[in-house]
Amino acid sequence: MSAEPNLATLAAVPPPTAADRERWAAADRAARPARLARLRERLAQQGLDAYFGVRSENSRYLTGFALGDGEDRVAGNSGQFLVRPDEVALLADSRYTEQACDEAPDASVVPAYHDLAERWPDLVRGCHRVAVEGAYVSRLTWDRLAAAAPDVELVPVEGWVEAQRAIKEPSEVERVAAACAVADAALARLLPAIRPGMTEAAVALDLEWGMRTHGADALAFDVAVLAGAQAALPHGSPGPRPIQAGQVLLFDFGAQVAGYRSDMTRTVFVGEPTTADLELYRLVAAAQEAALELLAAAAVGGRHPIAREVDTAARRVIEAAGHGDHFGHGLGHGIGLATHESPSLGRQAAADAALPGPTVFSVEPGVYLEGRIGVRIEDLVLFDPDAHRLERLTRFPRQVTVIGS
Amino acid sequence: MSAEPNLATLAAVPPPTAADRERWAAADRAARPARLARLRERLAQQGLDAYFGVRSENSRYLTGFALGDGEDRVAGNSGQFLVRPDEVALLADSRYTEQACDEAPDASVVPAYHDLAERWPDLVRGCHRVAVEGAYVSRLTWDRLAAAAPDVELVPVEGWVEAQRAIKEPSEVERVAAACAVADAALARLLPAIRPGMTEAAVALDLEWGMRTHGADALAFDVAVLAGAQAALPHGSPGPRPIQAGQVLLFDFGAQVAGYRSDMTRTVFVGEPTTADLELYRLVAAAQEAALELLAAAAVGGRHPIAREVDTAARRVIEAAGHGDHFGHGLGHGIGLATHESPSLGRQAAADAALPGPTVFSVEPGVYLEGRIGVRIEDLVLFDPDAHRLERLTRFPRQVTVIGS
Repeated sequence: MSAEPNLATLAAVPPPTAADRERWAAADRAARPARLARLRERLAQQGLDAYFGVRSENSRYLTGFALGDGEDRVAGNSGQFLVRPDEVALLADSRYTEQACDEAPDASVVPAYHDLAERWPDLVRGCHRVAVEGAYVSRLTWDRLAAAAPDVELVPVEGWVEAQRAIKEPSEVERVAAACAVADAALARLLPAIRPGMTEAAVALDLEWGMRTHGADALAFDVAVLAGAQAALPHGSPGPRPIQAGQVLLFDFGAQVAGYRSDMTRTVFVGEPTTADLELYRLVAAAQEAALELLAAAAVGGRHPIAREVDTAARRVIEAAGHGDHFGHGLGHGIGLATHESPSLGRQAAADAALPGPTVFSVEPGVYLEGRIGVRIEDLVLFDPDAHRLERLTRFPRQVTVIGS
Repeated sequence: MSAEPNLATLAAVPPPTAADRERWAAADRAARPARLARLRERLAQQGLDAYFGVRSENSRYLTGFALGDGEDRVAGNSGQFLVRPDEVALLADSRYTEQACDEAPDASVVPAYHDLAERWPDLVRGCHRVAVEGAYVSRLTWDRLAAAAPDVELVPVEGWVEAQRAIKEPSEVERVAAACAVADAALARLLPAIRPGMTEAAVALDLEWGMRTHGADALAFDVAVLAGAQAALPHGSPGPRPIQAGQVLLFDFGAQVAGYRSDMTRTVFVGEPTTADLELYRLVAAAQEAALELLAAAAVGGRHPIAREVDTAARRVIEAAGHGDHFGHGLGHGIGLATHESPSLGRQAAADAALPGPTVFSVEPGVYLEGRIGVRIEDLVLFDPDAHRLERLTRFPRQVTVIGS
């Protein structure tokens, strides 16, 4: 892979422009008919007349209608949708009607007021068998829909749209890369200003602010900034703890740009590291490199490796150093409209699951020594074996970085 | 009600202290046995052996384990729980084990790795009938649990814990009031600085920052700042639109403090309002006052009014002015660990649903004239008829406010 850019270069990358956003919106509009066609083909193969979806990322992917994170909790039925062979119906209550017409111009906007069951017989009129997102529709809603139209069979399906979303279109990759650049730039601007005595929480807020005032529409998830032993918690939250010289400082964060997300982790040293801490860092970096090398070789060879092979390549390096028990999570996860999506590169991925392509996922080995230290390095990569290409979308350097002096 | 405080007084209210937070945590620990006892009583009445819950607010209420907003999407089974007569089991994967032991000291922490169905037979061993949160467990998860332990009957229940949560303990009210004070103070500090030409999005970011750097652990929901005709969208998002003299500016926002939320709306005038806009404002204020008067009278009389009566009291004022069609949402909603919870004061509330007490909810009439203007005024109130008490927790003035000059 090419030489790593310096911080000043990364900090100067401009945020996405209005023209970028228009281009992406146009690309989505152009792509939606093909996305719907693939779904309809699968419906037809299975003898199903329609697809009822409630997951907000799937709604955005297929219709264009976008809810913010957590907004689905207060949106009622708004954003839920039914794909038929010749039509897409998008539910919206009066709060969302204008947005739905605007963002989903190709859908018929149907009113809904927490009264889906009453509207269901009309919505599915003429259908015999309807595919339903069974992993997202609650048991009680399911029963109410089944009772409202007893002649319409509901068939639970899972992962259909998610499998499509795992394969990224060029404009989707562009947006993940733009979200990576926003995150890279924010960390590059922030690092030189960090001094011992600042709290984790204050630094996390600064990092969030740096992203949200320079191109991020929102965070991908809450920023983690963890010092010293806190970094050993793979899911800790920043607190009022002052950062001290001699600690590591772990940043795990990401941005959202036009619906697509980034996710990166860097672990830096506050003051000169001890030999033992440096060794741990180099071990994690070597584990990541082993996974990236396997992926690069596969990409060049046009081969789609089994997801678990990639995890194993990194894990073997960590196990060889006696830290196998200190790497308690999977190697990575797909990312796009959701922060965690297909493909999974964990040990729990299906034994024979080959990576799709082109796809985007994280490569994030870590070693966590309870009560002492944690080190994780996480990059997003574009894996595209058909184009013989592996690209690191996170451009922030991975070399040992010492701050705070 | 008492005279309204001025902005300087509100701006100077200090954020919650560490001692406040310790007092609240202790109050929760002390309250949890009674909360669990009420749930167990209901289980026993219905011949059920256990309660399986997945909703994160219910988990926090009953066990103490707290996930951030949206974190349940990536937490797997962590935070899900089973209440038995003599034990509470709390699921957590390795990322959450330490937090679970810390926050839920009275629960047994049980490991879980996206493998609930495999663990289910052990978890429910000895149970014959288990209540399950049927509105939150997906159809597919339900089927997997049912198949994993075919002898254990799953009984869908809805709203059991939510009905308890609608009735607020004193320390819960304190936290909602603290969240209200954080929001009041942030708006009081911000208003004098707003000038025409600033964008909605920039003002929204400033308001968020004001809360998060002065006592809020998080937002209750994304801040809405909407100018002019945008304010006519009851659910619009702040955009890059510059605020202009002659417009209204609507703020709808809230803070989180120690898990509890606030929610308030103010509509102010940028420069001197026209007579027509002033009249509209006074109409909405009068509608709110009508609802508050009914509630005050009921509280003094120790009476629990039907929720719909309260909506009707406000709606009648707006209808009499010919704007009945321009008030398209319900009058209010309960608030606490969730931004929207029981009780509902909408037109769709059950016809005979009396308000519980003590309870906290919003009173938020609005009038929206499409393409021209929207006005909404929203306060949180504590309604406690047994103590003959109605208290406005939002303390920000409701009088006509002119800014930007």
